[in-house]
Amino acid sequence: MHEEPEVAVLRFGHRPGRDDRMTTHVGLTARALGADRVLLPDNAGQSAETIRDITDRFGGPFEVELREDQKAVVRDWEGTVVHLTMYGERVQDVESEVREAHADEPLLIVVGGEKVPWELYERAEFNVGVTNQPHSEVAGLAVFLDRLFDGRELDREWADADRQVLPQATGKKVVDADDEA
Amino acid sequence: MHEEPEVAVLRFGHRPGRDDRMTTHVGLTARALGADRVLLPDNAGQSAETIRDITDRFGGPFEVELREDQKAVVRDWEGTVVHLTMYGERVQDVESEVREAHADEPLLIVVGGEKVPWELYERAEFNVGVTNQPHSEVAGLAVFLDRLFDGRELDREWADADRQVLPQATGKKVVDADDEA
Repeated sequence: MHEEPEVAVLRFGHRPGRDDRMTTHVGLTARALGADRVLLPDNAGQSAETIRDITDRFGGPFEVELREDQKAVVRDWEGTVVHLTMYGERVQDVESEVREAHADEPLLIVVGGEKVPWELYERAEFNVGVTNQPHSEVAGLAVFLDRLFDGRELDREWADADRQVLPQATGKKVVDADDEA
Repeated sequence: MHEEPEVAVLRFGHRPGRDDRMTTHVGLTARALGADRVLLPDNAGQSAETIRDITDRFGGPFEVELREDQKAVVRDWEGTVVHLTMYGERVQDVESEVREAHADEPLLIVVGGEKVPWELYERAEFNVGVTNQPHSEVAGLAVFLDRLFDGRELDREWADADRQVLPQATGKKVVDADDEA
């Protein structure tokens, strides 16, 4: 987020068709919960389009990149790499250490899709489990970001939005972003 | 969780095929992050099977129910109803009030799939937005549960598991649940 070292989310692997919705949700979750950028495999063009469309309508800044060199991005990342995996260390045990690392340098969060290579476990400074139970890469990413930013991401403001949802106890209220109350 | 009023998650609506994976992830996230039970529409049998299979292998207690009377379940719920929606009040503003309600009585968390009816907004004691941005019902549920339980869910223990993942800084370690270190 604004004035902090970058947080990027890399979706590792994507099967077109089968994974479209999960990959889209990874990207939208990254955007909504404070990451600056998502890196998708180059065969995930449809997900990229959806995420960009949401960013155009609801605001940014948020970047979406399609990359064919995912392994190289991870290997050459200049900063800290966190790999989210149910086999990793418990998030509650390592989150403060990750937060300290992020205070100093950019953070890359790798979210597995298809089977991730062994090198990824070795390259990552942190292999982190949001529980050691099988559930959802989207859920793991969401909890991890909320804890990384300590809730600050919920107060972020959005630039260049066309529309804005105003919180309501009952019902729906959407306004032009300029009309913000 | 154990010795607290029940937390159930209801997945509202399901389109077989298209929604299978999202509905499965809603159920697995509910299980992993401390809910006691998930209620799925009766056309989501495949998701129910996957969630039960995971519970058999990795432990419980966790219940999966297929219900054809979703509207009635919500209407007649004896306790507090929370509806997660991007149009709702900000989670950071209402979470302590929800926590207090849950200290006294069972909580039903409704996660929208297809379009939810207006009555649901009116029936719910709380319409809650995990951000007022479009992202993922799985992500919203995950952050909501982590905040509801204040992280306690990460320390829960699992009964009747066949296998257990032991947290590792690098690599994967899965043991028979009886061999727990």
